[in-house]
Amino acid sequence: MPEHFADRLIEAVQGRSTPACVGIDPLIDSLPASLVPTERSEQADLEAVRRFCLDVIEVVAPVVPIVKINVAFFEPYRAPGIQLYDDLVAVAHSAGLMVIGDVKRGDIGHSTVQYARAHLGGDGRHPCVDAVTVSPYLGSDGVEPFLVPARRHGRGVFVLVQTSNPTAERLQGLELTSGGTVSDAVGGLVAEWAAADGLVGTSGYSAVGAVVSPRDVPSTRRLRAAMPRCTFLVPGFGAQGRSVEEVATCFNADGLGAIVNASRSVIYAFQGKPADAPGGWQAQVREAAVEFVAQLKRMHSERRE
Amino acid sequence: MPEHFADRLIEAVQGRSTPACVGIDPLIDSLPASLVPTERSEQADLEAVRRFCLDVIEVVAPVVPIVKINVAFFEPYRAPGIQLYDDLVAVAHSAGLMVIGDVKRGDIGHSTVQYARAHLGGDGRHPCVDAVTVSPYLGSDGVEPFLVPARRHGRGVFVLVQTSNPTAERLQGLELTSGGTVSDAVGGLVAEWAAADGLVGTSGYSAVGAVVSPRDVPSTRRLRAAMPRCTFLVPGFGAQGRSVEEVATCFNADGLGAIVNASRSVIYAFQGKPADAPGGWQAQVREAAVEFVAQLKRMHSERRE
Repeated sequence: MPEHFADRLIEAVQGRSTPACVGIDPLIDSLPASLVPTERSEQADLEAVRRFCLDVIEVVAPVVPIVKINVAFFEPYRAPGIQLYDDLVAVAHSAGLMVIGDVKRGDIGHSTVQYARAHLGGDGRHPCVDAVTVSPYLGSDGVEPFLVPARRHGRGVFVLVQTSNPTAERLQGLELTSGGTVSDAVGGLVAEWAAADGLVGTSGYSAVGAVVSPRDVPSTRRLRAAMPRCTFLVPGFGAQGRSVEEVATCFNADGLGAIVNASRSVIYAFQGKPADAPGGWQAQVREAAVEFVAQLKRMHSERRE
Repeated sequence: MPEHFADRLIEAVQGRSTPACVGIDPLIDSLPASLVPTERSEQADLEAVRRFCLDVIEVVAPVVPIVKINVAFFEPYRAPGIQLYDDLVAVAHSAGLMVIGDVKRGDIGHSTVQYARAHLGGDGRHPCVDAVTVSPYLGSDGVEPFLVPARRHGRGVFVLVQTSNPTAERLQGLELTSGGTVSDAVGGLVAEWAAADGLVGTSGYSAVGAVVSPRDVPSTRRLRAAMPRCTFLVPGFGAQGRSVEEVATCFNADGLGAIVNASRSVIYAFQGKPADAPGGWQAQVREAAVEFVAQLKRMHSERRE
């Protein structure tokens, strides 16, 4: 297994023949009814979340190469929630998955060093994700400390560039006197970080990627051209609904350069369906993951035509 | 005690006659030599961090009204670190301090709801800080979910507007075609959130504040004028060194509207001093906190002259 993050990611994507990533955002009130505890307590809820996530990981592991675990859904449970997040990282690794920690951290330099240590560690004392998401609002020293473990331990960093939420435009879409938008300027910074010494793998792709939710085809093309070495983490397939053409624009001509995430449309695929269906809710999650992979495959073959 | 965050904050500041806040950023390698364990392990390190923080809280509680605890320094210890962070929040509250959780969270809407639940909770199951810092890169839905517990449970939210780190300008300082910089635009958004229904206290100040590190007098005046109802959390007094005039500009004419944070210059005041001084390292931390308060007092009296 090559040590560089992007090289490992490409190997994983090619191994499963899909750039699909399943996002694990567990909410107690959205779990299958059979899992929700009858006597509710924080501990019982967290145990239900654990059982749900373990099954989701087991079911999607043969179908997709990557899971993204969002720590926001674990922090309300405080210390035991963080313990569960760490446990799931280890379980997903044992199942052969690559793991992105969706943590969106970012602070001034000496604090970011601590976040980088916490989340891309490498001291072997805790399970450690393969890559994290980070926020660029603090500038270079909110990101660069993450590049140290990226280099040293073959980890990856996805910098938020253009997000999928409705009001992102109020900041990210602001027009600059120098041309383009705030997202374009962040894209420029990301391209610079991505090209830094020791961060580009033998594949030509960098350990520094970007979270890019395609807003429209022209702006996505612009971001794609600005960050040629970066893998895009494309959120919001399914529940947040992007068009196939928009998502296709996130890929490079080599068919690489993007991984596509779906969270709710896969992990909550059982909602509104009969609870006594054969194979239970797990079969419905599996089916949704398979359908997600098929959709991406259709997108790629349409694009080639 | 009034329920509204800004009203409580003003009462606390007036009770101690100072807007000083001490930042708790504990690093094992910066602790007094007497605390560093001879046999290093993660557990032993964390125990040393606990003893250090407990003493710092005890020593500064009679001097300042507020502490800011940065969760970045606890996350490398994973679950036990988060447990310690929560324990310290409870201890600081028992010591009569208000507590700001420096967490810099921010995500898309439904994930931010979880961060808001985690950090401004209000379900009474965990110790809960009085206010948090949040990142604006995701736009309104990265911030607005925090306003729900702010309203409901009398909590506060400090949105990052202009930070103190050297490279912040690369994003925050970008010039907009609509005039001003990205920081100015975020200031405008913050002013809008701050004025929303149910967020302004009887003091006239809002539960929504802003992290503003004064870069120069004109830009600080502009931000001050743009966010009249907002308390500024001013970082970087001491170690990150801002001029007195720059910091003074963060206050409104009523002498309110800002709290000023010093972290390393207070909690590591013992560094480079004899370890056997009377009162030990705790006396040096206390003295630094007293001197920090005196500096702010001199600043205010110079300003009035």
